[in-house]
Amino acid sequence: MVRYIEVKSRARSEFIDITEQVHEVVRSFGVRSGMCHLFVLHTTAGITVNEGADPAVQRDIVGFLNKLVPNDPYFTHAEGNSDAHIKSMLVGTSQRIFVDNGKLVLGTWQSIYFCEFDGPRARRVAVKITADEV
Amino acid sequence: MVRYIEVKSRARSEFIDITEQVHEVVRSFGVRSGMCHLFVLHTTAGITVNEGADPAVQRDIVGFLNKLVPNDPYFTHAEGNSDAHIKSMLVGTSQRIFVDNGKLVLGTWQSIYFCEFDGPRARRVAVKITADEV
Amino acid sequence: MVRYIEVKSRARSEFIDITEQVHEVVRSFGVRSGMCHLFVLHTTAGITVNEGADPAVQRDIVGFLNKLVPNDPYFTHAEGNSDAHIKSMLVGTSQRIFVDNGKLVLGTWQSIYFCEFDGPRARRVAVKITADEV
Repeated sequence: MVRYIEVKSRARSEFIDITEQVHEVVRSFGVRSGMCHLFVLHTTAGITVNEGADPAVQRDIVGFLNKLVPNDPYFTHAEGNSDAHIKSMLVGTSQRIFVDNGKLVLGTWQSIYFCEFDGPRARRVAVKITADEV
Repeated sequence: MVRYIEVKSRARSEFIDITEQVHEVVRSFGVRSGMCHLFVLHTTAGITVNEGADPAVQRDIVGFLNKLVPNDPYFTHAEGNSDAHIKSMLVGTSQRIFVDNGKLVLGTWQSIYFCEFDGPRARRVAVKITADEV
Repeated sequence: MVRYIEVKSRARSEFIDITEQVHEVVRSFGVRSGMCHLFVLHTTAGITVNEGADPAVQRDIVGFLNKLVPNDPYFTHAEGNSDAHIKSMLVGTSQRIFVDNGKLVLGTWQSIYFCEFDGPRARRVAVKITADEV
């Protein structure tokens, strides 16, 4: 069964912490031991697991990506958002987190971020929880 | 059971749409609800999910990667294709797509691309379809 | 069941071949056909599958990443390791390798590397082996 997390971005480039929303889906399935699969259904957004303690890290990452992939005039895609497609590819559009004792297995500093690269938009992340065979 | 998709590249750097070939493997397994796992068995190629509607996007991505990772003289790997190894790492060598109602769950604009970075060559993508436990 | 591979890095940036340690976990589970899931529990490290034959490739990759993501003064994260967080995101913190006939399915030149970007440190990689339903 596929579930969906709805995300609303407010800037062109923005990282949005969705850890709590993913936790809620895991809890609602009641799986003790398994895997949480996340998949972004867009081509100008991504998903990553990175530091959640200091917001400066996300700011530095977004700033770096904007410098690394400027919207250069040599791009040929008429929509003018090739930079967002490239950032999406570099960051990736899926993540998998282990589930153990009914909880996501994340390191002390890890949070799950939806990565908007062509907002503001309404976005969707597909979620599937699979249980380990016993 | 592991299946293989054969890909033949014709340029050094090239994105090849393999969505239809992956669909065929999914159909042949007859799984209604599950996961399609894709894994590239090479170290100078990758796999990504990105826009399939406008070929200009793939052209812009390939052009950007060639600019980002030039084959610089400071590289020490004697084979002379370190740039291809680096692109492979940045893009990644695996993807997982949800299967629902017997079909791949992809966004409106998403296609699956094999990414050649050291062609032309004959390449292989390993595919596994797992069914959700009911 | 989640298992852990312990890794000890000795430099700030370093790729460490953990293929044999992953093989050992796979063997200890005795799964014939399935999937090996690897997840790095840190925000300044990564995991990749790339060439294992020539150590020059790893040296070239590490050198490239250090040039691509310098520790620029415009970073605002007080800990001063934003470059490591960015490299972690670009390389990724998880991998999945197929298991067939009780062995990891890897291409001729592929090895599994733990990628340290803020060492030296003691690190942990979470491992899960799932069996295909028969």
